[in-house]
Amino acid sequence: MLLEDTIVALATSQGIAAIAVIRLSGRDAITIAQSCFQGKDLTDQPSHSVHFGSIVNGINIIDEVLVTIFREPHSFTKENSAEISCHGSPFIVKEIIKVLLGHGARLAEPGEFTKRSFLNGRFDLAQAEAVADLITAETANAHQAALNQMRGGFSREIRQLREELVHFASLIELELDFGEEDVEFAKRDDLRNLIRKIQGYLTSLINSFDKGNVIKNGIPTVIAGRPNAGKSTLLNILLNEDRAIVSDIPGTTRDTIEDEMVLGGINFRFIDTAGLRETKDVIEVLGIERTRERMKKASLIIYLFDLSLTTLDEIATEESWVRQLGVPYLKVGNKVDLADKSILDALKSHDFIFISASLKTNIETLKEKLFELFHVDAVKTGDVMVTNLRHYHNLMQTNEALYRVLAGMDLQTTGDFLAMDIRQALHYLGEITGVITTDDLLDNIFSKFCIGK
Amino acid sequence: MLLEDTIVALATSQGIAAIAVIRLSGRDAITIAQSCFQGKDLTDQPSHSVHFGSIVNGINIIDEVLVTIFREPHSFTKENSAEISCHGSPFIVKEIIKVLLGHGARLAEPGEFTKRSFLNGRFDLAQAEAVADLITAETANAHQAALNQMRGGFSREIRQLREELVHFASLIELELDFGEEDVEFAKRDDLRNLIRKIQGYLTSLINSFDKGNVIKNGIPTVIAGRPNAGKSTLLNILLNEDRAIVSDIPGTTRDTIEDEMVLGGINFRFIDTAGLRETKDVIEVLGIERTRERMKKASLIIYLFDLSLTTLDEIATEESWVRQLGVPYLKVGNKVDLADKSILDALKSHDFIFISASLKTNIETLKEKLFELFHVDAVKTGDVMVTNLRHYHNLMQTNEALYRVLAGMDLQTTGDFLAMDIRQALHYLGEITGVITTDDLLDNIFSKFCIGK
Repeated sequence: MLLEDTIVALATSQGIAAIAVIRLSGRDAITIAQSCFQGKDLTDQPSHSVHFGSIVNGINIIDEVLVTIFREPHSFTKENSAEISCHGSPFIVKEIIKVLLGHGARLAEPGEFTKRSFLNGRFDLAQAEAVADLITAETANAHQAALNQMRGGFSREIRQLREELVHFASLIELELDFGEEDVEFAKRDDLRNLIRKIQGYLTSLINSFDKGNVIKNGIPTVIAGRPNAGKSTLLNILLNEDRAIVSDIPGTTRDTIEDEMVLGGINFRFIDTAGLRETKDVIEVLGIERTRERMKKASLIIYLFDLSLTTLDEIATEESWVRQLGVPYLKVGNKVDLADKSILDALKSHDFIFISASLKTNIETLKEKLFELFHVDAVKTGDVMVTNLRHYHNLMQTNEALYRVLAGMDLQTTGDFLAMDIRQALHYLGEITGVITTDDLLDNIFSKFCIGK
Repeated sequence: MLLEDTIVALATSQGIAAIAVIRLSGRDAITIAQSCFQGKDLTDQPSHSVHFGSIVNGINIIDEVLVTIFREPHSFTKENSAEISCHGSPFIVKEIIKVLLGHGARLAEPGEFTKRSFLNGRFDLAQAEAVADLITAETANAHQAALNQMRGGFSREIRQLREELVHFASLIELELDFGEEDVEFAKRDDLRNLIRKIQGYLTSLINSFDKGNVIKNGIPTVIAGRPNAGKSTLLNILLNEDRAIVSDIPGTTRDTIEDEMVLGGINFRFIDTAGLRETKDVIEVLGIERTRERMKKASLIIYLFDLSLTTLDEIATEESWVRQLGVPYLKVGNKVDLADKSILDALKSHDFIFISASLKTNIETLKEKLFELFHVDAVKTGDVMVTNLRHYHNLMQTNEALYRVLAGMDLQTTGDFLAMDIRQALHYLGEITGVITTDDLLDNIFSKFCIGK
């Protein structure tokens, strides 16, 4: 990838719409736009100005467009940029991109605009990663967490941690310079306290990952149970009510996602257990390894018992089977309206939620239980939490390196060994924000972006 | 619908992308945008300027955005407008629209932006209709035809026709003013020549509709034939080769449309004949009314004969059945590699195209035949043709009214009767460009647009 290139891509979603926006970025972005533009001379125009005209291929007009000019460094990428707002026709978009390619632009790689933003210093790496999280966020909490990270809240914490560590390192390195003289510039106890303080910061960030991960990725949930226990009925009730909520503003509803429900700001993502659903024989059900694996991967199992047909013994057998999966589960007794009073009495003290999926009885109670289990307080502007697995791993590794420093001090290790572990800790922290980086790391991060971002 | 309202809608395609654009139009567009914007004071900014800032809901930041300001009459709608370019997240789009609604905007109806363009005099009606055609155009020809119409080529022709008619009408009406005196200001022969000249214009426009319709809507095509004749194989070969062509620029390919192929600038749209395909018994096939109806609705049938299994008698029977549908058809003999030489010899002089779908033999010959049948010369900038059924009907009605004028003159009808028919002709022409219009007509046209256009 050459930063001297001018890159082009469709920046808006594909499909037929009123308008589409094609984005150019690079040294020649404005002159390339000008070379197929009929209207004012774009190369004479100031930054942040919009111009009406036509995109032409030779003498053929492709479309009437608005072109917005951004001059370096006042653009998303800090490079010269042009945004061409054309009619939202896939055909027109393709033709305009073709013409721009013919005038010297090249197609952008996935995430290349954001990567340039990072390389040109608009964002650090954690902020750039937050851009991707921001556009895929589906709940208010996930959105706010990504926005906070993009606006640099998380990066500030990491920088602060790093400064503390650098301060610590400088004390140790100073000792090394005077190594021969056996001077101790920093009292070992003070150093220990400083590291413990840094670890305190680190730990609170690391601990925020559980919440952050749930906020960003939702709860993988399986609704399980015998055939005909009412799994599909329950799923539909949970999903349909939710759907009515998400589609309250016409024209903005995203494509229907079959199996998601938002409750308490958390996305419950239902995992397909068709295998389990379709098998007729309960013994066979319990034996199906594939279904079992899926259930084991879930973060939550809603296990449905058919109270109208199942005996207490069968319930006990099924429950012990579910329990040994080691995944948190809710015991839900369905068809409560058809159940014997004796069964209900026997189960009452065992933490069962009694519902009737078909009559919609007690569905609210089930939801309240889900809400209690996974509710997170609304994320506020400025809240800092870790939502990214890569950051989480780096924070863990930083923390381990600091433990090695502490252990080394306990063993009276010399300053140069301590300094190695501290440098390691600084390295892991630096990778989070991209102070330290490699091509592989960048490729790995940005290749997951969509083209045009 | 009140033109004083400020309307809002997502203008780009729904879905996750780098950016999305939300459009506001109306008297208060800029002040409403300002009321939830943190950054410069937008109400102080000049037209066609772009401003970075945040959209906020109270104290909560929803997103960092670019807002473009357009001041009346220098916008698409000729009203004050603002375009908010935010991150391409369906969640963010929904939240921003919610905030704008809270500040006094209302959701736009389908096509309402374009309708305002028309009502405020930016476009006439035929041009506004072309906007919708432009964004759905899938071939170079359909795109160029729509662009020409949007840029007013067709409207100019209609205006010219109208002027000629008005000139004619004025001559007749003048006579009416002097009715008592029995004056003939216009010689009847001159009038006849003038009408014939106008009808000459009209007829060439009317005749362009066949071509225009094919360019805009494509050719509904059925691939028919006995079960196992190779229909699916042929369809796949035709479609796959095409698909490789349309997807040559990554990132711009529209969602796959299963059953379309572009050849010679014409879209061949394949109609599902699953009913025919799945039935095993040929007699039953011929008897299925539903399949027959579908074939009758097509503009072209590609009828496949299985040369490896079918006898000459059977071929004759099938062909006569296809012929009586009254739809143009191509006789295609498939599995030519497995056919008896005697069959091939017998069919040779009967206009058969011999192919092998599985070996891809002679597929190019078949395509050339399709190309010959439906090829249209590339539409050029400035070419005028009728592509819209509504315009076609109005042109036909105009022409009929002029025939009545001619007939009236032959019958020595008085000027006031002639004037009635001429007014009728002017009415039909005027409806095309919207000089004459009704609410029903407008609703009918714009309700077919998408929201945001």
